[in-house]
Amino acid sequence: MSLSNAPSNASSLSQPAVETDALIIGAGPAGLFQAFQLGLQGIAAQLVDALPHAGGQCYQLYGHKPIYDIPGIPVCSGLELVRRLEQQIAPMQVPRHLGQQVQSVEPMADGRWQIGTTAGTWFQARTVFIAAGVGAFVPKALKVPGAELLDPEQLLYHPQHLDGAAGREVLVYGGDEEAVTAAIGCAVEGGMRARKTYLMHRRDAFSAEPGQLAQLQQLRESGAVEVITGQITEVRQQDGRLQAVQWMDGEGNEHPLPLELLLVYLGISPRLGPLTDWGLALERKQLLVDPATLATSAPGIYAIGDIVSYPGKKRLILCAFHEATMAAFAAAEYLQGSKPLLEYTTTSARLHAILGVEHPAAG
Amino acid sequence: MSLSNAPSNASSLSQPAVETDALIIGAGPAGLFQAFQLGLQGIAAQLVDALPHAGGQCYQLYGHKPIYDIPGIPVCSGLELVRRLEQQIAPMQVPRHLGQQVQSVEPMADGRWQIGTTAGTWFQARTVFIAAGVGAFVPKALKVPGAELLDPEQLLYHPQHLDGAAGREVLVYGGDEEAVTAAIGCAVEGGMRARKTYLMHRRDAFSAEPGQLAQLQQLRESGAVEVITGQITEVRQQDGRLQAVQWMDGEGNEHPLPLELLLVYLGISPRLGPLTDWGLALERKQLLVDPATLATSAPGIYAIGDIVSYPGKKRLILCAFHEATMAAFAAAEYLQGSKPLLEYTTTSARLHAILGVEHPAAG
Repeated sequence: MSLSNAPSNASSLSQPAVETDALIIGAGPAGLFQAFQLGLQGIAAQLVDALPHAGGQCYQLYGHKPIYDIPGIPVCSGLELVRRLEQQIAPMQVPRHLGQQVQSVEPMADGRWQIGTTAGTWFQARTVFIAAGVGAFVPKALKVPGAELLDPEQLLYHPQHLDGAAGREVLVYGGDEEAVTAAIGCAVEGGMRARKTYLMHRRDAFSAEPGQLAQLQQLRESGAVEVITGQITEVRQQDGRLQAVQWMDGEGNEHPLPLELLLVYLGISPRLGPLTDWGLALERKQLLVDPATLATSAPGIYAIGDIVSYPGKKRLILCAFHEATMAAFAAAEYLQGSKPLLEYTTTSARLHAILGVEHPAAG
Repeated sequence: MSLSNAPSNASSLSQPAVETDALIIGAGPAGLFQAFQLGLQGIAAQLVDALPHAGGQCYQLYGHKPIYDIPGIPVCSGLELVRRLEQQIAPMQVPRHLGQQVQSVEPMADGRWQIGTTAGTWFQARTVFIAAGVGAFVPKALKVPGAELLDPEQLLYHPQHLDGAAGREVLVYGGDEEAVTAAIGCAVEGGMRARKTYLMHRRDAFSAEPGQLAQLQQLRESGAVEVITGQITEVRQQDGRLQAVQWMDGEGNEHPLPLELLLVYLGISPRLGPLTDWGLALERKQLLVDPATLATSAPGIYAIGDIVSYPGKKRLILCAFHEATMAAFAAAEYLQGSKPLLEYTTTSARLHAILGVEHPAAG
């Protein structure tokens, strides 16, 4: 069985591999609680996620939206749930490797797994937990000729900051709130002060807060932002330097637009990506697992949350919490060779030590 | 199959049966969250519990003790968790039938179940959810000759209030904190002012807060409480009226003690009780269920929480929450004849109406 789509071996690693008992792929609510349950089992884990922050769907899709069905939490936003889970797993001090997507998972001769990411990080892990939700959240790529030739300094997808825009001719490409925010940030007094800010969208309509739309309108009227209605058809570069984009207006006519920086906001969406190539048993793009252990078809690899399928599976956060618990017990047995005892956080001195809490007085 | 240990039928009911789509046996965390998940499915439920309050083990065993492994709640006491769940299920307005234990569960001709309790309440339910934890929390009975002949006005187990003690000769029997509290409550100035308060325990040592023990000592010294070291061997009554108890001291000598009221505090402990007689598939006193549906061996009867067994089962509260969710989906399919859609509390207008929340603005 090969679980890889990018052949490699330990001797070719560009940097020393991170060794860990458990690697958790996905730092959404499921992955965070997986780290907690592994911690209670005494298993050190590390987290990796494609997003530059923890939280997964709860951050990306439900950040400010209410969730009503987390047991014991009558209502919370996605961000609030993430914050609460972060507080809960704080005692475990889990290292994170963010902003990078797992590309390859390969078996090692000693039964461990070697995992490589898009950032060139390598892990050697005794167990792997796939908590990848509906997939890695990655920006939609601009698929036009020439785009693939630009280096990431000149074509940025959903950048976290706009530092590179200062003093340059910038095109913000997209129509959503993030695109509007970026165009304002490049053009506004006290902002990045691009030399010229263009905002291109396929129609002259933008999704943003009313206040932002009003601010954009002011910047358009003052000439600080020039809005172009059209679509990029080609990116032109010379010796790796961005020269211009070719764009098409509503009548189908093409025009060149000279440019130094291209900021692309076509949305961030989940992709299963290379996970489908790892050789694990799949059904309708979901990993088949044993509900008693959450074990996949590969020894030492477990999967939980929205990415798994078993009889009766419900894609709810609270079910992922249960699955994380079952998987942690199963992994403890796999690693130790014997069934772990069920201990309670209320009474177990061992768990109190892990949680860093005082042993409560006997009740 | 008979699921009854007390034959009866609809025509013999002493009062009209309560009709409900779902009856939940057990009002601990599992039962409360079961009511929530059934509510989200549009299934009206009612709760029954042996204790006079909701909360089950969380109230009885973990009331003031910390729990660290409820997902998203870094720490809470048992009572705090119960309070949070009560707040969460408030929109469902679930009727409760407390202080009564289910005694019989019988199939009806129309496929429903008829359930009888120790309080004489009868239910006719389309589905039943057994969330009975480690069993019904019931007081340990005083097992000496004559005790069974007294009416419940003269022999009270762990009473909620001490009103009946005023002006009477009262024996508090037990050595725990509740017994000490009761003896103080009968004897203290501003308390119930029993004519005479005895406190009997098998040894002269009591478990209570230091402040209570000091108060008890004062009452002993003033003669307001008389402590007797011994054990009841017999209860004497005449025409149904309590006359005295016979008790044995450390040397084995017996003595009579004239009495008007007997308050017994021998502890409250979980008993599976009649549940084991209902004909459901059991293994080591646990109900065998299908983990995909939490269905028992009887159609329309589901079981969740500490009382169930399935491969990999962990007796953790968070697992019971997952099971309640799976059971609610399974029951919705059983009642409607078709699989319910998975809807999210964040986005579903139907669920918002059930939860009584404003439909949030589209994000």
